[in-house]
Amino acid sequence: MRDRILAAAAIDFADRGYAGTSIGLIAERAATGKGQVQYHFSAKSDIALELVRSSFSRAPFANVIDDGPTVRGMEAIVASIRGVAGAFRDDVSVRAAVRLVREYHLIPVALPTPYLGWVARIGMLLREAEAAGEIPTGLDHDLEAWHLVAYFSGVQEVSNRLTDRDDLPERIEEMLARALPALGVVHPERFL
Amino acid sequence: MRDRILAAAAIDFADRGYAGTSIGLIAERAATGKGQVQYHFSAKSDIALELVRSSFSRAPFANVIDDGPTVRGMEAIVASIRGVAGAFRDDVSVRAAVRLVREYHLIPVALPTPYLGWVARIGMLLREAEAAGEIPTGLDHDLEAWHLVAYFSGVQEVSNRLTDRDDLPERIEEMLARALPALGVVHPERFL
Repeated sequence: MRDRILAAAAIDFADRGYAGTSIGLIAERAATGKGQVQYHFSAKSDIALELVRSSFSRAPFANVIDDGPTVRGMEAIVASIRGVAGAFRDDVSVRAAVRLVREYHLIPVALPTPYLGWVARIGMLLREAEAAGEIPTGLDHDLEAWHLVAYFSGVQEVSNRLTDRDDLPERIEEMLARALPALGVVHPERFL
Repeated sequence: MRDRILAAAAIDFADRGYAGTSIGLIAERAATGKGQVQYHFSAKSDIALELVRSSFSRAPFANVIDDGPTVRGMEAIVASIRGVAGAFRDDVSVRAAVRLVREYHLIPVALPTPYLGWVARIGMLLREAEAAGEIPTGLDHDLEAWHLVAYFSGVQEVSNRLTDRDDLPERIEEMLARALPALGVVHPERFL
């Protein structure tokens, strides 16, 4: 029941935002009563918090290596960026989490800060890429990671606003084709 | 009085968003009565619409050449990006407009679509840059303009969220130092 409530809440938060979603609406979509929702969650903000936490801790955002031992360095960065883009399109919980995080000023609990975990992860992968000779030495890995995450965020935002993310996969490939050479990646076509 | 109401509304919309702002609040900040506000604007959404329209039509967003005849091509692109970044930090009406445009789903009037005008303007300036030999020939100018605007949008968004735009000027210079060489700008340091 708890998972059913979270799945129902994700749909409403993604579509209507925090203010437009009520416990009653979530209960209705989960085909249960408000009492059941309130038994599992003390407030609407608790549901929002749990959705954001679980989305942010999941790959490919997470600051852990979870793509298996064979994917490292630049290959893992490209996989992570493509993976996050796919999750934005295909995973309603991620869409809900992203929208909730942007509406944080409406939500009376402290949500996890976005971006930081992903920046840290990509910074770590850039260190691997340097060790593997995939990028020039001497880059500021955390700064380059910040810029990759910022560029990605803008691409998904503009794509979302202008095409409802229809063109996101193609825009992401265009982004990678620009960002990897800008990083000085050696033979970037290997990773694209 | 109309301008005083708009200036007051900009502060509240920028700080509290559309839902958190009321006609009463705007009237109080403008040191007038609700009747005066309602005399000038038929609804809260009309005030929002006028703020967005006037911000979007102003330089450096606008799809017009208004930097004077001496600034063209790549120099005008850099000036436009720096100018928009400055406006995000220093102009409360622009901050209000940007926030309102992101909250468009809450506002019962059709707001102008963001990004498109600025993409069109930068595309035009890239054509000038090509004619002046500042960038390689054969680029898709509208596509490159889309990516400059998207990258900018992400930079301002992440900077806003993590530092309240404190680090925006420095992040924008870092962005330009990455984006201009990626465009193939000849001697990018001329423009930075």
